[in-house]
Amino acid sequence: MRLSNSYRSYCNFHKKQKLFPQMNLRDDTEAFQESRTGEPMCKSQTLMLQTGLICPANPGCYYYMPYTVRALEKLIRVLDQEMQAIGGQKVNMPTLCSGKLWKASGRWELMGKELLRVTDRHSQEYCLGPTHEEAITDLVASQGSLSYKQLPLLLYQVTRKFRDEPRPRFGFDVSEEAALQTYSLVCKAYCNIFSRLGLQFLKVQGATGSIGGTLSHEFQLPSDVGEDRLAMCTNCDFSANLELVKSDEMRCPVCKGELVEKKGIEVGHTFFLGTKYSSVFKTTVQTTDNVPVLAEMGCYGLGVTRILAASIELLSTQNAIRWPNLIAPYQVCLIPPKSGSKAQETTELIEDLHRCVAEVIPQLKDELVLDDRTQFTIGKRLKDADKLGYPFVIVCGKKALDDPPLFEVCNQNTGETLFLTKEATIDLLRKVQIP
Amino acid sequence: MRLSNSYRSYCNFHKKQKLFPQMNLRDDTEAFQESRTGEPMCKSQTLMLQTGLICPANPGCYYYMPYTVRALEKLIRVLDQEMQAIGGQKVNMPTLCSGKLWKASGRWELMGKELLRVTDRHSQEYCLGPTHEEAITDLVASQGSLSYKQLPLLLYQVTRKFRDEPRPRFGFDVSEEAALQTYSLVCKAYCNIFSRLGLQFLKVQGATGSIGGTLSHEFQLPSDVGEDRLAMCTNCDFSANLELVKSDEMRCPVCKGELVEKKGIEVGHTFFLGTKYSSVFKTTVQTTDNVPVLAEMGCYGLGVTRILAASIELLSTQNAIRWPNLIAPYQVCLIPPKSGSKAQETTELIEDLHRCVAEVIPQLKDELVLDDRTQFTIGKRLKDADKLGYPFVIVCGKKALDDPPLFEVCNQNTGETLFLTKEATIDLLRKVQIP
Repeated sequence: MRLSNSYRSYCNFHKKQKLFPQMNLRDDTEAFQESRTGEPMCKSQTLMLQTGLICPANPGCYYYMPYTVRALEKLIRVLDQEMQAIGGQKVNMPTLCSGKLWKASGRWELMGKELLRVTDRHSQEYCLGPTHEEAITDLVASQGSLSYKQLPLLLYQVTRKFRDEPRPRFGFDVSEEAALQTYSLVCKAYCNIFSRLGLQFLKVQGATGSIGGTLSHEFQLPSDVGEDRLAMCTNCDFSANLELVKSDEMRCPVCKGELVEKKGIEVGHTFFLGTKYSSVFKTTVQTTDNVPVLAEMGCYGLGVTRILAASIELLSTQNAIRWPNLIAPYQVCLIPPKSGSKAQETTELIEDLHRCVAEVIPQLKDELVLDDRTQFTIGKRLKDADKLGYPFVIVCGKKALDDPPLFEVCNQNTGETLFLTKEATIDLLRKVQIP
Repeated sequence: MRLSNSYRSYCNFHKKQKLFPQMNLRDDTEAFQESRTGEPMCKSQTLMLQTGLICPANPGCYYYMPYTVRALEKLIRVLDQEMQAIGGQKVNMPTLCSGKLWKASGRWELMGKELLRVTDRHSQEYCLGPTHEEAITDLVASQGSLSYKQLPLLLYQVTRKFRDEPRPRFGFDVSEEAALQTYSLVCKAYCNIFSRLGLQFLKVQGATGSIGGTLSHEFQLPSDVGEDRLAMCTNCDFSANLELVKSDEMRCPVCKGELVEKKGIEVGHTFFLGTKYSSVFKTTVQTTDNVPVLAEMGCYGLGVTRILAASIELLSTQNAIRWPNLIAPYQVCLIPPKSGSKAQETTELIEDLHRCVAEVIPQLKDELVLDDRTQFTIGKRLKDADKLGYPFVIVCGKKALDDPPLFEVCNQNTGETLFLTKEATIDLLRKVQIP
């Protein structure tokens, strides 16, 4: 398995590279119908384990293998782009959060067993941050009172969270009105993210839970394997987590229309916090009249690994992984002929195509996989490529012996296969987007 | 402070964006001569605190602010490129490592208080992985016996490590000879990394410590603030950590030449492990004769945040930060005239330059900062730009009123200032490299 990459000149070692998942594609589907703990698994889990995209580590924890890391890094790039488009600045906060801050907010007790706690050699108490409201509020307070000119201040981070993996963002504003504007701006950015990924989503009213605040929305991907139950009005645009609806009624609180239930996978959650945390940590900002007031805050989270898993759940078939195109680990898989076959002489043609695409379309240089396991038939490798879900698979088959030679170009999402010359293939690939 | 970015079309919100560090550049240098704990600080710490690049969180832990996050992400890109050039594949392992694995290797007891331990609600024991030898060896063992065709297998990750921040990589080979080849290949990649960053470095023999193995090298950046003491032979090319030299002698063990002492900051460490871990976790690979043998392993780490801090320490002056050019948070700072000044009419010229650079040199689109704090003089903003260490600062001063208008282009690393037309400025910026 050979990788095209931009550092070819350094060393030729990549020729020996074996890409991890293809090494270990498993046919023993049965073995993965149940997880280690004996619980039934959903389609995406089964597929990701079968294809070696993830490997079990501890209960609830997985090793992310190379293809998955690539998809996650692309997803993070999409989030970075959308956050930065609304003025977000990326920060990075320590995993270990001071127990003092959590005691100040009262959540050290409130969170109970959900909080993983650590004591260091100096008997200082820390928790593994499940969220970072305390830390960010304290950090902004330490900057002194920010001027209204510097607001809204939108900070975000991508980090591992303990118990689940949200991706929190924080907005600081000078007034409730400004903070609500920021709130809707972040919601808009979240909508953009799901649209760019080609995922249908629902934005519903949510509960504020242990994070608190006065307004909250959940971003849900509709799916029968979802754990969240949602109530949708058939008459108006009201929708909410079922927790918020009186279950004996199932009537819309706005228009009294009928509510129907849907299931969803929660992938994002937004909270309007007001001054809940800024009042504890004395985080003030200056108004236009230079009066210090408590900062109005919002906090926003997306589950990065959850979005990836949920989108695989929604897009895949029972036997083949499909990714949102934009974040597929590699965009193109090239399959040269089997060694010893009649078409073997066309090997050079696909190697030439590989080189040309890398040169002519620089952004695809690192997106091409040449499946040089030529001991296998084209059919076997096509099956593997289908299972792994490359958006484009290009085969050098019998028509490569034609004059001019034609490549078999398969768009795995539409199922469409075209026979194209080298030039036409390159033209088609020019349209491929990566974040 | 305005950011050029590639998502301009989505929203104009970035016009209001205020970049974090400039908001809070501090003149109270004195306040940062000592850390919170009263220990004296080195130059890089003082400068990074003064400029708001980092903020203190817990003892030994910092919040990384937006400019620092950008530099770290670029550094990680350099590491990714060099690792992938030698066939490295990126994985991601959980922060919480199972106590069982650490007990199997005997390090659960060996590490004592250095290991941060957590017990979950099911009384399962975990540690916050200070390194990941156990986890990766167990992971590779779970793949079954890999064939020699799939070797060398080079896996790496970038993660938070607890107690320090190395960046471990692991190589698995079929024989000691092959493993030593991989070892020297990784060392070569590390040398490339430091060369690309423009940093002088030393590769010295190191101790194997609690990680173990039979061969080890340290990558050191020579600096008087370094905590490591190194012995360098004046006669041959022997060099080692002073721990390895009998201190009463100070003679080179190879040629008996005189040894001199240098101080260094350790930024990387490589270990040849042999079968130390693979024998515990039964990690086997198949030879060309299809005989399963224990995998020969190496493990390799770079300290990501340490490289950043050490390079700032080495390159900066007492009053101004300097970054390795390649990873500076932003490459170019553009300074328009003060509002109300004679030159104010030239504001359009620098805004036009800003737009043109972003269009003509796409890789710089996201590397430009327009310092639109036009309530301040050019001089004040030049001083801030000097302090923050943008590689290039472009001022729209009096010569912008000439015909043709000239920009003042300052290369902050050489100290050279040129007066250039728009076209010449763009030509100069074409040479700027980013990873």
